[in-house]
Amino acid sequence: MPAPEPIRWDGKHLALLDQRRLPHEQVYINQRDAETVTDAIRTLTVRGAPAIGIAAAYGLVVAMQPHRHHSGNAFARELSRAAETIAAARPTAVNLRWAVDRVLGAAAGDDPFDAIRREAEAIHEEDRRICRAIGEHGRPLISPGCGVLTHCNAGALAVSELGTATAPMYLAHADGVPFRVFVDETRPLLQGARLTAWELLEGGLDVTLLCDNMAARLMTEGEIDLVIVGTDRVVANGDVVNKIGTAALAILCRYFAIPFYVACPSSTFDPQTPTGAEVIIEERAPEEVLGDDAAPGVKVRNPAFDVTPNSLVTAFVTDVGVIEPPFAANLLRLR
Amino acid sequence: MPAPEPIRWDGKHLALLDQRRLPHEQVYINQRDAETVTDAIRTLTVRGAPAIGIAAAYGLVVAMQPHRHHSGNAFARELSRAAETIAAARPTAVNLRWAVDRVLGAAAGDDPFDAIRREAEAIHEEDRRICRAIGEHGRPLISPGCGVLTHCNAGALAVSELGTATAPMYLAHADGVPFRVFVDETRPLLQGARLTAWELLEGGLDVTLLCDNMAARLMTEGEIDLVIVGTDRVVANGDVVNKIGTAALAILCRYFAIPFYVACPSSTFDPQTPTGAEVIIEERAPEEVLGDDAAPGVKVRNPAFDVTPNSLVTAFVTDVGVIEPPFAANLLRLR
Repeated sequence: MPAPEPIRWDGKHLALLDQRRLPHEQVYINQRDAETVTDAIRTLTVRGAPAIGIAAAYGLVVAMQPHRHHSGNAFARELSRAAETIAAARPTAVNLRWAVDRVLGAAAGDDPFDAIRREAEAIHEEDRRICRAIGEHGRPLISPGCGVLTHCNAGALAVSELGTATAPMYLAHADGVPFRVFVDETRPLLQGARLTAWELLEGGLDVTLLCDNMAARLMTEGEIDLVIVGTDRVVANGDVVNKIGTAALAILCRYFAIPFYVACPSSTFDPQTPTGAEVIIEERAPEEVLGDDAAPGVKVRNPAFDVTPNSLVTAFVTDVGVIEPPFAANLLRLR
Repeated sequence: MPAPEPIRWDGKHLALLDQRRLPHEQVYINQRDAETVTDAIRTLTVRGAPAIGIAAAYGLVVAMQPHRHHSGNAFARELSRAAETIAAARPTAVNLRWAVDRVLGAAAGDDPFDAIRREAEAIHEEDRRICRAIGEHGRPLISPGCGVLTHCNAGALAVSELGTATAPMYLAHADGVPFRVFVDETRPLLQGARLTAWELLEGGLDVTLLCDNMAARLMTEGEIDLVIVGTDRVVANGDVVNKIGTAALAILCRYFAIPFYVACPSSTFDPQTPTGAEVIIEERAPEEVLGDDAAPGVKVRNPAFDVTPNSLVTAFVTDVGVIEPPFAANLLRLR
């Protein structure tokens, strides 16, 4: 059973899995034009930086289908209009702008429509290849009978096909390796419970959900042999910015002498930022934490991310290989 | 502003704060007889081992009020019947049986009704005195401007008047010390968000709620100067059994070099159990973890407690003083 696809493309039609309705319903929404794709990105039908970029690239192709036989200038005008519409869906999403610009830049030659279609497919294919490479490099970490803990969603739903943190798991499962995955529910937005647990179950893996405060107990019991998480950004010294709760897991791993791996494309490295201390951590709305049952009027902290010190990372599992310490030197060689 | 009282007694009438309706409504339910008290204990209107014991003791007095002028034998028969009813409310609650037996044993002399009334008041008063002593011993730990993190509810609602982990906080606040309390929401049942945050706010303290996976971030920011938690049981070597999530906090404290205190009555020590490894941890129903949004069909782990190794405890704050390492020797001296 393959992992679920957030994006379906048959060479002509684009359908996006409505992630807002997961895990209750698995509904694909057909994308007809620039407006429907823009709406899908804006309303989080599709989420995860790479998935947003891929959806935007295909969205441009879909938007240009009615104009595919137009002359060079008319085509270019219409493409530019559609690109602006889609790129404006989430102005701060770096990957969205990057993918749109890449498709725009490809529109040349005798058949510009065919050129942008091929470029969008190339973006998707590259992402698939990166995930597969991460999976292959991480695959040996998963031994028969082991227990793997992950946090948040760095899975197929956020990226494509295999995800990042989940890629070694999907490949090990495909190889018939028996192992268990433990998934932190990941408060406050429950991406672990809603998305990761769902996609791994769909993929046929052995999945157990736990609350974010239970990992130490499972480690005491010997249930967890390694932790693999994704990341939003790895800075020059190897400090890791990822979903809130990641740093605590890394500290528990150190205490229990359990390896802690970070899976990511090599493009996630940010050599411009020296250390994690320079990263500004987004503080999100109190309403995400306050459910119906919290004491009314209480103040709330809701940092969306935390910084895991590089000293707690066993290795980075990337598309170009497993990167071990010293990170400052070894990460720099990627560039 | 005093901490809220889970139990109100005016010498004649017993009213129990309905903790199921917190934090939305603050409703006291008058207890008229053995049946209403039994129902209140069974349905978790009142919770927390000491509070259940006190409620049961007063419940017996209320139940015996119509029989207060009966002869010795008639009184004893009726008391025995009421005691059996109330003690059966939660058969595994050690404190409930203990309190009921203590009241039964006091029924003697010319005015057995007055004797049991005085015994119930003595149980309540002892509990208050213990909490106050814990508070006084822990009070110097809270310096002006500091940030204190706590987990679950070891507060006034579970005990009486000042609680255990919260007692130093209430006393420091009463002394005018400015400080902030951070409260873990405590998944899956959210006792921190529902109860601790509520009672500390009611008490006028500066309270901030956070998800269980956020403590490491706040420690990185320097917001947390010490952690104080309660405990269900401290075994002979000083290992601490407490709400799931406690061990992780202690490990974070070690990593960040932050003191980790456990506040408890000296009666919480269990010298019969050598180490925490011998304690069987209750696994509760998956439904507590699975909300409406979790992936359907996923397996769940839901250990209710964990064991914090004694090596991670800075000190125990008890009614007989602050107990520092070596715990095996120093705890034994309590007995």
